Amino acid sequence: MKHALSVTRAQDFAAWYQAVISEADLAEESGVRGCMVIRPWGYGIWERIQKLLDAEIKRTGHENCYFPLFIPLSYFAREAEHVEGFAKEMAVVTHHRLKAEGGSLVPDPDSKLEEPLVVRPTSEMIIGAAFSRWVQSWRDLPVLTNQWANVVRWEMRTRMFLRTAEFLWQEGHTAHATAEEAREETLRMLEVYRSLAEDCLALPVVAGEKPENERFPGAVATYSIEAMMQDGKALQAGTSHFLGTNFAAAQNIRFQNSQGEQELANTTSWGVTTRLIGGVVMVHGDDDGLRVPPVIAPQQIIIVPMLRDQPEDDSILAYCQEIAAALSKLTAFGEPVRPLLDKKAIKAANKRWSWVKKGAPIIVEVGGRDLAAGNVSVVRRDRLYNEAGKLDSAVIARDDFLGAAAAMLEDIQKSLHAQAKAFLHGNIDRSVTDVAGLKAYFGDNGKAGWAEVQWSKPTGAALDQVVETLKAMKLTLRNVPLDAAEADGACIFTGAPAVERVLVGRAY
Amino acid sequence: MKHALSVTRAQDFAAWYQAVISEADLAEESGVRGCMVIRPWGYGIWERIQKLLDAEIKRTGHENCYFPLFIPLSYFAREAEHVEGFAKEMAVVTHHRLKAEGGSLVPDPDSKLEEPLVVRPTSEMIIGAAFSRWVQSWRDLPVLTNQWANVVRWEMRTRMFLRTAEFLWQEGHTAHATAEEAREETLRMLEVYRSLAEDCLALPVVAGEKPENERFPGAVATYSIEAMMQDGKALQAGTSHFLGTNFAAAQNIRFQNSQGEQELANTTSWGVTTRLIGGVVMVHGDDDGLRVPPVIAPQQIIIVPMLRDQPEDDSILAYCQEIAAALSKLTAFGEPVRPLLDKKAIKAANKRWSWVKKGAPIIVEVGGRDLAAGNVSVVRRDRLYNEAGKLDSAVIARDDFLGAAAAMLEDIQKSLHAQAKAFLHGNIDRSVTDVAGLKAYFGDNGKAGWAEVQWSKPTGAALDQVVETLKAMKLTLRNVPLDAAEADGACIFTGAPAVERVLVGRAY
Repeated sequence: MKHALSVTRAQDFAAWYQAVISEADLAEESGVRGCMVIRPWGYGIWERIQKLLDAEIKRTGHENCYFPLFIPLSYFAREAEHVEGFAKEMAVVTHHRLKAEGGSLVPDPDSKLEEPLVVRPTSEMIIGAAFSRWVQSWRDLPVLTNQWANVVRWEMRTRMFLRTAEFLWQEGHTAHATAEEAREETLRMLEVYRSLAEDCLALPVVAGEKPENERFPGAVATYSIEAMMQDGKALQAGTSHFLGTNFAAAQNIRFQNSQGEQELANTTSWGVTTRLIGGVVMVHGDDDGLRVPPVIAPQQIIIVPMLRDQPEDDSILAYCQEIAAALSKLTAFGEPVRPLLDKKAIKAANKRWSWVKKGAPIIVEVGGRDLAAGNVSVVRRDRLYNEAGKLDSAVIARDDFLGAAAAMLEDIQKSLHAQAKAFLHGNIDRSVTDVAGLKAYFGDNGKAGWAEVQWSKPTGAALDQVVETLKAMKLTLRNVPLDAAEADGACIFTGAPAVERVLVGRAY
Repeated sequence: MKHALSVTRAQDFAAWYQAVISEADLAEESGVRGCMVIRPWGYGIWERIQKLLDAEIKRTGHENCYFPLFIPLSYFAREAEHVEGFAKEMAVVTHHRLKAEGGSLVPDPDSKLEEPLVVRPTSEMIIGAAFSRWVQSWRDLPVLTNQWANVVRWEMRTRMFLRTAEFLWQEGHTAHATAEEAREETLRMLEVYRSLAEDCLALPVVAGEKPENERFPGAVATYSIEAMMQDGKALQAGTSHFLGTNFAAAQNIRFQNSQGEQELANTTSWGVTTRLIGGVVMVHGDDDGLRVPPVIAPQQIIIVPMLRDQPEDDSILAYCQEIAAALSKLTAFGEPVRPLLDKKAIKAANKRWSWVKKGAPIIVEVGGRDLAAGNVSVVRRDRLYNEAGKLDSAVIARDDFLGAAAAMLEDIQKSLHAQAKAFLHGNIDRSVTDVAGLKAYFGDNGKAGWAEVQWSKPTGAALDQVVETLKAMKLTLRNVPLDAAEADGACIFTGAPAVERVLVGRAY
């Protein structure tokens, strides 16, 4: 069977991923090392994610702020442990002026900054400094803050959406009077992320706690949601950190409690990034391109008039306009349906395939015959081909389609989620009982999915040993699922009695 | 009369401006040179502006994208004229790693970039490079793009919102097949800005074309909207540039026209920034703080329960909750009304004054007496005091208030606009006929407002002479209003026959 992309998932998953991103007009190389241009369809998906998540962030009591892009170098020295995790690769601003020299431009040596500025890789330090000003009394707590921003981490190997030098994200930062409250907050936002992934992005995820070696530097506990890509690898799709008083101590976030005593606040931070879009591609894409879950599709129903430079073109356009107007009055997922009438001056067949590759949930084609009979030709992107392997374009009476469109979108959302969920659950092995079994399960190509194994939760050097053993197999510890069964056996690494179950897999 | 701020506009306008920003919790110094922290109330106003403007940007056919923060130095060399306007002060990234040295952190010399990266001061160059990839044929045109982003200009003297090293903005960039289309686009977006300012921010503005010396570097024509602050100074509140083929030539944005010939595209760019919030402060603020126009108020009606740690507190809270719920079902300006029940654990009187300083349009106070009588006590921020100079808090039956609230918000919006419009029109002088008259009008303190004068539109050295003459009086040419009367006299600078009327004033 011929497909719209020149490379299939089975042939070369990495090349397929790049092909989807390019053919779906999600993003492209910018010419600036490690930075991408996010094109309208990709950015439109990000805007949908922003809108949905922002509403949840506000509903849970947080307020948006904006903090500086630049962080003075000295701020990083305040939190040595934190620095350890980030110091290696950051963009550093050292000059504030250019000058012409020998026909080209150079940083003006006279403009060298006394203190270099780091382009934020994350904002704990600059936001912590603000919290220390804002928090004086227990009455000032909790402080519930979020920021939508760009951040920069100088990655050596970059990959569109998954790992780029600059990326977009939201970072929540909160301060609380007690550890208990801060822990609740950490789990509350983890649940917000889980629900965003499952209910909006149709991404089934496992929510759990990261093992010690995978914690955010300086955190007391780090939680994540992990999604399984179609090549079986894990993608960490969001994290939520309970920071205890570690950052508050470094940044002097103290308050007077109701007994008049000084205490350190407990803080949290949590974030999701444009990486989520990479996850959507690798979970929902197929050999014809992307399939965007309707909830996050910038436009959900694309209407393609089949024009032939004939007098009847005007009537076809008018008919399409009516359909678009009628669709935009419908409601799906509690919001108005988002139709788009594609009037671009290119061939209808090319348009159809461009929208297939972009993954618009429903494509409606209207030609002269449809117009005459009061019909539309409808393609559902989640069921592109019929059993005979032909494009499944159903001719339906216009009014029947209008009556069914909202439910069809909801059905597509469900079907994408169900398909991905079946894949996730079908590819978690729970039978491995020793390291040899792990090796056998993952084999050489590591495309087996994940293994949930029992372990004794070693720490320190014993944990390092486990990490090394896994690394030799290109495996990592993902997380300890919150809803995993109790441990009832032996640790597959140490043989000691197991205390919990942890997910192991290859990862992006 | 005593006011909520410690400094009045009349005493010291600059100090008053800082006091409003601080007391209204709009923003604060960040500790990073020239960068501010935008606090929730200030950021909430920006979110409202973003939401309203973004809808207009999309309605006029533009799509949002995201382009890199960093621009390689060599890109700046491509457009010499453009560089002239920006090269002086930009943040330059020269290293990509830190290392520990002698107990502190320094940029690692081994991580020096081969080509330094400039933190974008604006994105013509990086977006132009994308356009040159995207535009091949006339069928690809127009390209209508917008980006919401942070940019950095290394300003020596900074002032919150008005001039900061980092600021937030949107920048629109478009490419068209013809100059005519591009000119139409330039004026279309100028009108979008004019309407945003007048209808949403209640900022009366004068839309017009900038004289040659005030053009964006490389532009064929620059248009602006200019607002008058309460100290009579002008604030350039938005600009729209027709770039002709200048940028297209430098960046190789060419297309094959329908006759198969290669042509350069015509491009435009246009932007507004967080500076608009500074304009709102200086136009609508008074000696009690900010007054936020209801259309852009994050919350429009604040409900303050007057709690006294008494058993009746619960009933008061329940009563307030009902009012908040009823208000959120109302519609004003075509959107649901945005009430906020302020339950913070501070004294009711302090709460009232904090919301007065923040400029919430309506403050509703509810005490035990109000509850018993089914009333509310209502303060309108645009009419804070009665004729006797007392706080004008009106006791109204709850249901009467609910019935009147939406109309009251709309009335406040109108009254703020009308007041500012009267100030603007009352402070533009049209009687000056020579430079001596200009000097007399502006006097030494320059708080007179603006003068609209006739001029011969000199260019080159003659224009430089005019600019110098004005500079000696700390005056600048603002713009040539689109709706100014025809010229019918002599140029006040050269004595030659005038060709148009231009606004002159002091400016931020």
